[in-house]
Amino acid sequence: MPFESPSITPIRDDALSRRLQQRIDLKTKPRGSLGRLESLAHQIGLIRRTVSPRLSPPTVFVFAADHGVAAEGVSAYPQEVTWQMVENFLAGGAAINVLARQQGVALHIVDAGVKHDFGGRDGLIDRKIRAGSGNLCREPAMTAQECGQALQTGVDLAAQTDSDVIGFGEMGIANTTPAAALMHRLTGVAIADCVGAGTGVDAHGVQRKSQVIEQAVQRHAGAQTPLDILAAVGGLEIAMMAGAMLGAASRRRVLLIDGFIATSALLLAARLSPAILDYCVFCHQSDERGHARMLQALGARPLLDLGLRLGEGTGCVLAWPLVQAAAGFLCDMASFEDAGVSDAGDRA
Amino acid sequence: MPFESPSITPIRDDALSRRLQQRIDLKTKPRGSLGRLESLAHQIGLIRRTVSPRLSPPTVFVFAADHGVAAEGVSAYPQEVTWQMVENFLAGGAAINVLARQQGVALHIVDAGVKHDFGGRDGLIDRKIRAGSGNLCREPAMTAQECGQALQTGVDLAAQTDSDVIGFGEMGIANTTPAAALMHRLTGVAIADCVGAGTGVDAHGVQRKSQVIEQAVQRHAGAQTPLDILAAVGGLEIAMMAGAMLGAASRRRVLLIDGFIATSALLLAARLSPAILDYCVFCHQSDERGHARMLQALGARPLLDLGLRLGEGTGCVLAWPLVQAAAGFLCDMASFEDAGVSDAGDRA
Repeated sequence: MPFESPSITPIRDDALSRRLQQRIDLKTKPRGSLGRLESLAHQIGLIRRTVSPRLSPPTVFVFAADHGVAAEGVSAYPQEVTWQMVENFLAGGAAINVLARQQGVALHIVDAGVKHDFGGRDGLIDRKIRAGSGNLCREPAMTAQECGQALQTGVDLAAQTDSDVIGFGEMGIANTTPAAALMHRLTGVAIADCVGAGTGVDAHGVQRKSQVIEQAVQRHAGAQTPLDILAAVGGLEIAMMAGAMLGAASRRRVLLIDGFIATSALLLAARLSPAILDYCVFCHQSDERGHARMLQALGARPLLDLGLRLGEGTGCVLAWPLVQAAAGFLCDMASFEDAGVSDAGDRA
Repeated sequence: MPFESPSITPIRDDALSRRLQQRIDLKTKPRGSLGRLESLAHQIGLIRRTVSPRLSPPTVFVFAADHGVAAEGVSAYPQEVTWQMVENFLAGGAAINVLARQQGVALHIVDAGVKHDFGGRDGLIDRKIRAGSGNLCREPAMTAQECGQALQTGVDLAAQTDSDVIGFGEMGIANTTPAAALMHRLTGVAIADCVGAGTGVDAHGVQRKSQVIEQAVQRHAGAQTPLDILAAVGGLEIAMMAGAMLGAASRRRVLLIDGFIATSALLLAARLSPAILDYCVFCHQSDERGHARMLQALGARPLLDLGLRLGEGTGCVLAWPLVQAAAGFLCDMASFEDAGVSDAGDRA
C-alpha cells in the first residue's frame, strides 16, 4: 500500500490572529520590542489554537540509520560510529543527552536502520526497516515499500507522544550525502552548492561526495515523484523523520527543525504536504554548506546561527528555551492595564 | 575619594588553554561541530580556571533610574513608567520576570536613582543615589561624587552575590539618550549613528534625540576622562551597572551583557579596566540602531540576533541556556575513549 500523508491543516485563523496580536501588544513592553519572540508567540498561538499556549516539555526523537554510500568514502568517520553513537546516546554521554538533561527534554532514540545487531537493547526503540540503506550511487537506497514503511513508522511514532513540541534529530554516518542528493533533486540547486564538509572531510572529500551524488542522480534520473526520489537517494532515518514530522504537524504540534539532515527530511515532507511549514520552528542555520540555501528554498528564517554542524537534534534543544520564552511571555506577562503601567499613548 | 576600579586579571593561561582545547576536541563529536559553544566553553573554562566549569544559576541585576533628559521629550513613554515598571518587576509581571522564572535565574531589582518614593518597598534593593539624574543637555547628569558613589555601590553589590554568572539589566525611561551620548564620546562614532528609536519614537523623535545629544556634548566638551564623561552625560543606573560589571569581573564571574544600555555601561567599564572584556559573554545584538556599531567597537560577537530592544536583562536570560550548554558539554559529555566510539583518525 503506498504511503499516504496524514492530513495537515494550515494554521491561518484571522480572528485568532487579531486576538493574539492584541494580547502581544498590550503586554508591558514597547510594541515589537521582543522581536522574533513576538512572531514566534503568534505562530505558537495559531498552532495550538489559543491565546495562552502553555507548552509541555518537548520530546526529541533521534533517528539512527546506516548508509550504503559510506562505502564510497564520503565520511570522515568509519561506519561503525553510527551504532557506537547509538550506544553513547543510550548511556547518556552524547551532546544531545547533556543538552536534553539541562532543558528537561525527553529523548527517544530510534533504530530506523542501523547496520548492527543491538539485540533488544533497553531504551532503544527498534524500528529497523533494514540494516542500512543501499549504496545510492549503485542501487536505490531502499525499495518503495521500505520507504513507505519508514514514513508510516515515523507517523505512528509521532502519534505516540503527548508532547506539544517535538524535535527531530538524527545520527547516520555518511548521511549528508543522501541529504545533499535530496536537496539537489527537490530544489534544483546545483550539486556543488548542496555538498559540504559533513563531519569534516577535506576539499578532496567534498569533491568525492559531489561525484558520488552526480553518479546517483544520473542512475536514478527516472525517479520523479518525491517518494520515488526519497527511495532512490534518501535514507532510512531521513524517511522516518519525514514521516514523524508529518505525523506531528497533523496533530498540531510545534515542530523543532534542526540542521542539514533534518531540513532535508522537511523538504521532502513539505512536498507531500506544504501546510507542514506552518508548524515549523527553524532552530538554527548550520555551518554545513548547503543549509543556508536549503532554508532559503523553504522561506525559513532560523532562530540561531552558532556555526553548529553536529545534528542529533542539538539545535532543537538549544532553540527550545526561545520557544518556551515566546509562549511564556504570551501566557504570563502582565498587560499595561493589569500592572498599572502607562502605555506609550499616555505620554504628554 | 575618587572611584578606583577593582583589579581585573586577564584570563589568558596558555597551559590551561591547551588542556581545555584537548578536552573539547576529545568529546564524542566531530571537532568544531558545536561551533560557538566550543569557544564559549573555552572562555568559561579560562574565567573559572578549570576544565570542568560547573556553573551555579545566574543572578541578574536590574538597575533602575530616572533621567532628567526625559523632560526633553526623548522617549515614547512618560517618566513615571520607570517606577511603575519597578513595581511590575516586584510583582513578577514583566518580561524579565517570566524569562527568569523559566530559566531559574535569580533577579535583584535595584533602585539606583528612581524619581519616586517607594517607601521601603519589600524586595527592592534601595541604593538610590539621587531621585533622577540632571538633564544632561542643560547640566551634568550627576556630580563626580555621585558618579563615584554609584560605581562603588555597583562593585559592592556584585561582591554580595555568590553566582558564578551575573547578568546586567536596566530600566529607565529616556536612557537610550545618555547611552548614545556615552557611545559617541567613548567611541567617536557620529551621533547620528549612535541614536535609535529607543522604546519606539518616530523619525522626528530620533532627530530630537540627536539634537539633545549634540547640545549635551557641546555643553560638556570639557569632560575628558571616562569618569568625567560618565558624570556629565551618563545615568545613575548606567554608572551602577558599570561598577557591578567591574566588581563581577574582578571576582572572576561570567558576565552576561545585554543590549544597548548595558553595552554602553561596559564601554565605560572597559575604559577603566580593559581586561573586563575577557569575562564578557555578548548575549545578543539589539535592534536599537547603535548597538551593532557599539559591539563592533568592542570587537564583540553576540550570540543571539532576535531583533530584541527591551532591555531589563532579557537578552541575558535568553542567552543563558547557551552558556549553560557550553559549560555542560565540557563537563558532562563522554570522550571518544570513554564511550568506545571510533574517532575520525580511525577511518582506514
